[in-house]
Amino acid sequence: MWRDLAPIGRDAGSQGYRRYAWSGADLECRDWFRAQVEARGMVYETDRNGNQWGWAGDPGGADAVVVGSHLDSVPDGGAFDGPLGVVSSFAALDELRRRGAEFTRPVAVTNFGDEEGARFGLACVGSRLTAGQLTRAQAHALRDGDGVPLPRAMETAGYDPDAIGPDPERLGRIGAFVELHVEQGRALDLTGDPVGIASSIWPHGRWRFDFHGEANHAGTTRLADRRDPMLSYAETVLAARREAALAGALATFGKVAVEPNGVNAIPSLVRGWLDSRAADQATLDTVVTAIEAAAHEHAERAGVDLRVVRESFTPVVEFAHGLRDEVGRILGGKLPVLGTGAGHDAGILSGSIPTAMLFVRNPTGVSHSPAEFAAEDDCVAGVLALADVLEGLACT
Amino acid sequence: MWRDLAPIGRDAGSQGYRRYAWSGADLECRDWFRAQVEARGMVYETDRNGNQWGWAGDPGGADAVVVGSHLDSVPDGGAFDGPLGVVSSFAALDELRRRGAEFTRPVAVTNFGDEEGARFGLACVGSRLTAGQLTRAQAHALRDGDGVPLPRAMETAGYDPDAIGPDPERLGRIGAFVELHVEQGRALDLTGDPVGIASSIWPHGRWRFDFHGEANHAGTTRLADRRDPMLSYAETVLAARREAALAGALATFGKVAVEPNGVNAIPSLVRGWLDSRAADQATLDTVVTAIEAAAHEHAERAGVDLRVVRESFTPVVEFAHGLRDEVGRILGGKLPVLGTGAGHDAGILSGSIPTAMLFVRNPTGVSHSPAEFAAEDDCVAGVLALADVLEGLACT
Repeated sequence: MWRDLAPIGRDAGSQGYRRYAWSGADLECRDWFRAQVEARGMVYETDRNGNQWGWAGDPGGADAVVVGSHLDSVPDGGAFDGPLGVVSSFAALDELRRRGAEFTRPVAVTNFGDEEGARFGLACVGSRLTAGQLTRAQAHALRDGDGVPLPRAMETAGYDPDAIGPDPERLGRIGAFVELHVEQGRALDLTGDPVGIASSIWPHGRWRFDFHGEANHAGTTRLADRRDPMLSYAETVLAARREAALAGALATFGKVAVEPNGVNAIPSLVRGWLDSRAADQATLDTVVTAIEAAAHEHAERAGVDLRVVRESFTPVVEFAHGLRDEVGRILGGKLPVLGTGAGHDAGILSGSIPTAMLFVRNPTGVSHSPAEFAAEDDCVAGVLALADVLEGLACT
Repeated sequence: MWRDLAPIGRDAGSQGYRRYAWSGADLECRDWFRAQVEARGMVYETDRNGNQWGWAGDPGGADAVVVGSHLDSVPDGGAFDGPLGVVSSFAALDELRRRGAEFTRPVAVTNFGDEEGARFGLACVGSRLTAGQLTRAQAHALRDGDGVPLPRAMETAGYDPDAIGPDPERLGRIGAFVELHVEQGRALDLTGDPVGIASSIWPHGRWRFDFHGEANHAGTTRLADRRDPMLSYAETVLAARREAALAGALATFGKVAVEPNGVNAIPSLVRGWLDSRAADQATLDTVVTAIEAAAHEHAERAGVDLRVVRESFTPVVEFAHGLRDEVGRILGGKLPVLGTGAGHDAGILSGSIPTAMLFVRNPTGVSHSPAEFAAEDDCVAGVLALADVLEGLACT
């Protein structure tokens, strides 16, 4: 399975993956998913939001157990973030077939669409729509970097953008969703465990800082006469790091856009995006407030106008304790339970149905990069753990 | 004249000009130039490098006096940088006709092609080719941001890219070139003079700083595990400002490119371009060396690899003292003489022929921006000064 999926959407230069929602590479991944479902004699389905499902047992039955993840990627992403969860789900089903297990509840593997938000700027679009956390109108207003609206991208890919919307009936038939994912930090590497269980997803958000200065000639404008927004941006990048370190939180400026972006022009506008996360809401508020205050202070000193816009925010997600404890029991009660700073479809769905997550060890902690890695032995341990969970939940 | 030229290539949103070499807006400006030449009964010529000429008197005569500038613009540039020199040249000829002046030397108005380098990344392509400071092969290798090679752009515009090259015979027939230009700083505003004379162009260069870090997930990577090149870039931006201020020089980071440039991804690469200039070579060396040292120190501390490449460099240009003093005498011996940080065609040509420059006051000092400005009275003073210089040089 892994071999078939590996070349799709891989950039020859960076060796990273570029599987953006509804792009050619994404559609190839979706074809691969459908083929895997059909090869196992399962029932294939696409829901109203373009999420893919493969059913073992009655797709209309109640109290289903669902496993899966996503197949799209960030720009130049790694091979594991997303696909490991989907591939492990199929492999776990194969393992249960080997064990001769009989399901007493309907079981499905799923691939949620547009989890990374790499193309339209909003993460978890497929699960958000299904859970009613994103309206059709909001989704229709999304555009990619080339100005292509999401509805047109869906249509081009052969999906009906007017059908999208909440799907409570479908969620009502799901009793548990378990997502396996490569760990995106080094907690399991530090504890020495191949597999762990998620406790919560940190609250996190994105803020856009627009520093408006005055475009001017870089070769003739005296330093004293400048209103250079690049200076305020640089001060803010450093302030963000300082405040995050002080609070034990995370703060990152990973994206920037400059106008006019000419070598010999003082910028008129520097736009920087802050991603910040912390273990709890109060800490996150403290960090972001301090960064904003520092940014305003530096901007004012440089004669630069600053506007800060919160573009998205996700409160803390506590995974359902009942399901989490049951998964822990099935797996022997000894696996570490850890929080994570990354958002997931399981986090979105946890507002509607019981969800749980398994993490597979990532020895370097690197993610969203071609260097993302999980050892084969650890992947096998993940598949067996997922098979155990499925057997424990759906075969008794 | 000004009214005809004003709407060409103006962006309705920014109100700035986008007249890029060999683009539609540039070609419209060139048509305007030709019409101005022909309306005055002068002889129109395009040279092998696409620079435009309008001759009063014999185009083949020796010891000609040439005035002019350029009509192209930076992205969202102002109305004056370039066009003021061309329009003033035609207006000065009209003034001399009113005065009944008779030329004893051939006189020409010129429009040098691709001065700003906004499209192909290299400034003063037209004058560099003519002066033999850029070879045909080097020019043919230039590409714009969309990958269009310069030869194809010239061809599309109706010019022969295989004809380009040095033009010593043409330069040999020119005894003096005088370029009038809007000032791009506030020196004349501070001295209270509408017009000034250039002494020299500061040495200046462009350096590319490539900060290579490690792409990683912004939501899950511990601060201690990061190799974030955005931090090193930010430190370097601030170091550049500090070092320039200390030395009385200029240093600007106005252009930046980030990979993968995702909100939730620690960058793998931040590429920043430094533009630095100073009154003399030793000061410039000191400033750039100090900025590089600070950048290396910060990069090393952050586990980031840094590579610095000098992309271009122009040594100090001292305008010919003989011509400069003669222009000063003609204008009454009282005008301020000032250095400038900006490159000009007159600077390029000063290596081959005697050149001089007149500056017209810019009350805010703003340039390369729609806010660039010169008062009408000051523009008239510039035209009269240029007419006086032409009369003094070519009518005695």
